[in-house]
Amino acid sequence: MAEPRVRGDRLIEFVFELVRAMGGDETQGRTFAEALVWSDLIGRPNHGVWRLEAYLKRLERGLIRCPCQIEVVGSADGIRLLDGDAGFGQYVGDVAMRLAVELAGRAGVGAVGVRNSNHFGTGAYFVNLACESRMIGVAMSNSTPRIAPLGGSLPVFGTNPIAFGIPRRDGHHVLVDMASSRMSGAEIMRVAEAGGELPEGIAIERSGEALTDPSRIGEGALLPFGAAKGYGLVLVIEVLSSVLTGSGLSTEVTSMFDDLTSVGNNGHFFLSIDVAKFVEPDRFLDRMEHLVQLVLASRADGTDVRLPGEVRWQKLEEARMLGIPLDEPCREVIKRLAAQKSVPPPW
Amino acid sequence: MAEPRVRGDRLIEFVFELVRAMGGDETQGRTFAEALVWSDLIGRPNHGVWRLEAYLKRLERGLIRCPCQIEVVGSADGIRLLDGDAGFGQYVGDVAMRLAVELAGRAGVGAVGVRNSNHFGTGAYFVNLACESRMIGVAMSNSTPRIAPLGGSLPVFGTNPIAFGIPRRDGHHVLVDMASSRMSGAEIMRVAEAGGELPEGIAIERSGEALTDPSRIGEGALLPFGAAKGYGLVLVIEVLSSVLTGSGLSTEVTSMFDDLTSVGNNGHFFLSIDVAKFVEPDRFLDRMEHLVQLVLASRADGTDVRLPGEVRWQKLEEARMLGIPLDEPCREVIKRLAAQKSVPPPW
Repeated sequence: MAEPRVRGDRLIEFVFELVRAMGGDETQGRTFAEALVWSDLIGRPNHGVWRLEAYLKRLERGLIRCPCQIEVVGSADGIRLLDGDAGFGQYVGDVAMRLAVELAGRAGVGAVGVRNSNHFGTGAYFVNLACESRMIGVAMSNSTPRIAPLGGSLPVFGTNPIAFGIPRRDGHHVLVDMASSRMSGAEIMRVAEAGGELPEGIAIERSGEALTDPSRIGEGALLPFGAAKGYGLVLVIEVLSSVLTGSGLSTEVTSMFDDLTSVGNNGHFFLSIDVAKFVEPDRFLDRMEHLVQLVLASRADGTDVRLPGEVRWQKLEEARMLGIPLDEPCREVIKRLAAQKSVPPPW
Repeated sequence: MAEPRVRGDRLIEFVFELVRAMGGDETQGRTFAEALVWSDLIGRPNHGVWRLEAYLKRLERGLIRCPCQIEVVGSADGIRLLDGDAGFGQYVGDVAMRLAVELAGRAGVGAVGVRNSNHFGTGAYFVNLACESRMIGVAMSNSTPRIAPLGGSLPVFGTNPIAFGIPRRDGHHVLVDMASSRMSGAEIMRVAEAGGELPEGIAIERSGEALTDPSRIGEGALLPFGAAKGYGLVLVIEVLSSVLTGSGLSTEVTSMFDDLTSVGNNGHFFLSIDVAKFVEPDRFLDRMEHLVQLVLASRADGTDVRLPGEVRWQKLEEARMLGIPLDEPCREVIKRLAAQKSVPPPW
C-alpha cells in the first residue's frame, strides 16, 4: 500500500496552528511552517515535519524565540550582520536572504551574515528565494560538531550545509544543496535501522580507525566528503558562518536534538548576486539553457544525467498534485503533537 | 643528488625578461612573472614556469595580448564586469581581485566577473591578495572541457579551479585551492609516465565504462570529485565564471596546450569580503586562531592534521631560504627559452 498523503497547504496550516497554540508569533510562525513543509514538498523529509518535535520542544523551553527581535549589528552598502535573537532558523534565514537580495538589487551583490540563530533546515529553500528574484543565491550554516578535519578524529565542524541556486527561465532553478559530510546523519540512521555496516571512509573512531558500526556513530566523528577538498570547504563554511559573524564556533553550537538546555547558537551566511547587474538577464537565461543542453547531451549509454535540483521539482509537482507522502514515523509525530497541543491533524 | 635550486627573484626576472624580449608590456609582464613564479615558490610547479612555453607561444601568436586593454563593461556599487581583452590570465586576475578588494573596502563585499581572459594559473595567488588586505577571498575560473557531469560521459566542464583564502594574524593565511576533478591532469600525466593504471572513479570512457589507461585520457572524460557534490560545485563555477560574465562557455573555451589557433576565452569570478565590516578584525583573528587550535587538537594517533595551505607556507619559506627546486623537465624548458629568446638563464 502506498503511503498516505496529505495536502501541502493543510500541513503548513497544521504546523502554523501548533506554533500559534504555543503562543508563537503569527508572521514568524507562518514563515517557519512554510519553510519546514517546503522540505517535505520537495521530497527531503529529513528536514521537514519529521523534525517538528525537536523544534517545538526548543520553542517551549525558550531556546527558540518566537517572536524573535532580529537586530542589525553591522552594516555597509553591500552587507548586513544580523543577530537572530535565537529565532527559528528558517525565519531568520528567510529575513536574511531577502535582505541579501535587496542589497544585491542595488549593489549587484549582497552578503548577509547571521549570528545567534538556530538550525535553518534546508539551504535550498533560501537560495530558491534568490532565484525567484532572478539572482544567484548561496546559503550556508554551521551546526553542532560532527565532522573531523582530515587526519583528525575529533569532531570540529558541523555537517555544515551549503546550497547554491541558479535561476532558470522555467522556474525550475538549479538547486545544489549538500552537507559537508560524506554521508548524512539521516542516512547513517537508516543503515543502523537496517542492521547494516558503514563502509570505510564514512566515519572514524577516536583511535583513528574506521568506525563501521552505525549505532556507535556518536562516539566517533564523520569524515568530510571529497577528502582534502571537502575538508577545505567545511572549514570555509565554518569561518563564514561563525568566525565572521561572531556566532557560536564549533563546540559552541549545540545539537538541536540532544541538548535541550542551551540555545542553538548557529551562524549562517547568505550571498545574492544580481544577474541583471552583470549581463542582460535574457542572455543569461539563454546561455543557462545552452549549458543545460550540453549537460543533458553528455549522457552515456544506459545512464541518466540530471541537473542538480531536478528531482526536487519533480517531487514538488507530484506533491502538489497528489499530496505529500508521509511515512509511519512522520505520521506518529503529527498524531502526538496534534493530541498534545489540541490542534486537529492535517488529514 | 638534490635538484638544483634557483632564487625566486632571479626566476621572476628571467620570466619578465622573456616577456619583454617578445615586446610585452613591462607592468603586465611583471605581474605575470610574479604570479607564475609564486606557484613555483609555494611548491605547485604544475602551474609555474614549467608551463611557460605554452604561455609564450600564445603570446607570440597574439592569442595572449600584452599589453591588454582591460575594459569595465558592467558596474554597480559592489560589482564590476571586466573584459580582459585576452590578456595574461594572471595579470587580468590580479587586476580583478584587487578591484574586488577595493569594492569590498567600501561596500563590505565586492564581486568581479571577468570575460575574455586566459588561463589564470593558481587560484591561491588571488585569494592571498585578498588576505593581505585582511579580507576573505574567493577566486574561480572555468577552463577547457575535461569533466563529465554525473551520469554523463562527454566532457562539459573544465577542471574549473576554486580557491578560498582566510586571513590569519601571522600572515600564513588559510588557502584552500582545488580543481573540480577527482584527479588533476598533471597527476594523471605522472601515472602515465610511470606506466601505471588509473583506479576506477577517476575517468570515464565515451561508453560510460571506467577509463583506466592514463595515456588515453584525451578520448574520455574526467569525473568530478565528491560525486554529486563535486558535480554541483563544478556547475556553479562554470555558471559564475561564464554564464554570468558572458565569457566562453564550456566548449567555447580552448585548451592552453592543444589549441594554438584560438584565444583562451576563459572566464573568472572573484569575491572579496571585508572582515572589518562584519566584526572587529582582532576578534576575527582571535577566533580564527581558536578554530585553528581546535583543528590541530583533533589529531588522531599516528596521523597529522594540517591546515589547508600550511604546506604552501612551508615550501615558500624553504624556497626563500634555499631557492626553488627545479626538476629536469623544468630546467630544459628554461634552457630552451633562454636560447631562443637570447635571455640569460636564471642560474
